[in-house]
Amino acid sequence: MNIGILGTGIVGRTLAMRLVELSHAVILGTRDPQKTLAETASDLPMHTWLQQNPKVILGTFADAAAHGEIVINATNGNGSLNALRAAGEAKLNSKTLLDISNPLDFSKGMPPTLFVSNTDSLAEQIQREFPNVKVVKTLNTVTASLMVHPRQLANGTHSVFISGNDAAAKAKVSDLLHSFGWEDIIDLGDISTARGVEMYLPIWLRLWGALGTGLLNVRVVR
Amino acid sequence: MNIGILGTGIVGRTLAMRLVELSHAVILGTRDPQKTLAETASDLPMHTWLQQNPKVILGTFADAAAHGEIVINATNGNGSLNALRAAGEAKLNSKTLLDISNPLDFSKGMPPTLFVSNTDSLAEQIQREFPNVKVVKTLNTVTASLMVHPRQLANGTHSVFISGNDAAAKAKVSDLLHSFGWEDIIDLGDISTARGVEMYLPIWLRLWGALGTGLLNVRVVR
Repeated sequence: MNIGILGTGIVGRTLAMRLVELSHAVILGTRDPQKTLAETASDLPMHTWLQQNPKVILGTFADAAAHGEIVINATNGNGSLNALRAAGEAKLNSKTLLDISNPLDFSKGMPPTLFVSNTDSLAEQIQREFPNVKVVKTLNTVTASLMVHPRQLANGTHSVFISGNDAAAKAKVSDLLHSFGWEDIIDLGDISTARGVEMYLPIWLRLWGALGTGLLNVRVVR
Repeated sequence: MNIGILGTGIVGRTLAMRLVELSHAVILGTRDPQKTLAETASDLPMHTWLQQNPKVILGTFADAAAHGEIVINATNGNGSLNALRAAGEAKLNSKTLLDISNPLDFSKGMPPTLFVSNTDSLAEQIQREFPNVKVVKTLNTVTASLMVHPRQLANGTHSVFISGNDAAAKAKVSDLLHSFGWEDIIDLGDISTARGVEMYLPIWLRLWGALGTGLLNVRVVR
C-alpha cells in the first residue's frame, strides 16, 4: 500500500522502517526536505538515516499526503495542525488519517501537561478542521518501538485502542495494526473517545517514571 | 483497625462490608445520620442496609473521622471538600486519608467530564486544604466491587495505583489493599501523580461502554 507519514522524528522514522519491511511504499514528509537533509545536529542525521533506509523516500508534507492511501500523523502535537495545513486539505480529503499525535505541552516544565483535554482533544480538533478526512486515533499510548513491534513485550498480550467516526477507516487501520503484531485492538467508539486515550498520557508518563522503562503498556482485563 | 468511611453510596457501603468482614471496626459517616436513616427512595434504604450489616455503625462525618486510624473518602468528588470540612480538620490531622473520589462533572451531559484535571487534581486540592492529613489516592480506577474483591476478575492479575507524599501512609494503605486481594500495587509517586489516575477516568468510562461491563481493569505489562 502507499503510505504517507508526516513527521521525521523517532515515531515517523520507526513507522517508516516497519512499513517498508512490510513491503509498503513510504514517503516520509517534512516541512522543508532540503532543510531536513542539511541538519547535522541529531544523533542520526536524516541523510545518514536515509542511506540506511534506502526504500524510504523523503518529501514534503504535501508529497506524503498525496502519496498515501493511508496518511499517518506522526508530528509533535503542537505542530500537527500546521503540518496538516501544509500537507493541504485537497490532498488529504477522503483519506484515512492515522493520528498518533499527543497534545503534550512542555512549556510548563516536566512532566508535560496537555494543551487540550477533558472537553476536547487534538484528534477532534483535527477532525473539525478537516471534516472530509477520516481521522482514526491510535498508537499514541505506547512508545515508538512498541507501536510497530508489540510482540517484543509479553508476547503481545497487551492492548491498543482505536477511535474514529468512520467504520471502514477503522477497519483499514486495524488491519495495519494486526500486521504489526497487535491482537487486542479495542474500538472505543467515535472520535470523541480520543479524549480518553490522550488523557491517558499523564498516567503513562508516571508509569514510565515509576517503573524505569518506557517499554510498558496496559492489557485491558475483562 | 478502626476505620472511618465518609460517604454512604455504593463505594462507601461496599468498602464497609468488606472491612467488617476483615474484622475492622467501621463507622460510616454521613452529613446527617437521621436524614440518611429516614430516606426511603433508594433501592436499598440505609436503615434496611444497616439491618443487613449490623456491625457497621452509622455516624456523622466527624464521628467517622474521629474513629478512624485510616479515614476513607468515598464521597462524590463534587462533595468531597465539603464532607472533609464537615468532618473537621482537627479530627483528620495526622491521619491517613485513603482518597477514592473522582472529580466527575455530570452537569455537561454524558459521559461526564472532570471538574479539575491536567494541571491539578482533586487529591491535590484535598492535600492543599488539609496539609497535615496524609492523603493517599488509590482505588478510583475500578468499580466498587473490584476495589474490595480484585480476585473475582482474572484471578487478580491486574493493577492498582497509589499516589501520596507520605511513605508510611502509602505502606499502610498498601497493606489494606493486599488484604483485599490486590497483588500488583504500583506506587506512582507523590500526590501530584493523582492527576494521572484521575485523568484515566475518561478512557475507563469509554472502555465500560465499548466492552459492556464495568468489571474491567488494566494490567500494567512491563
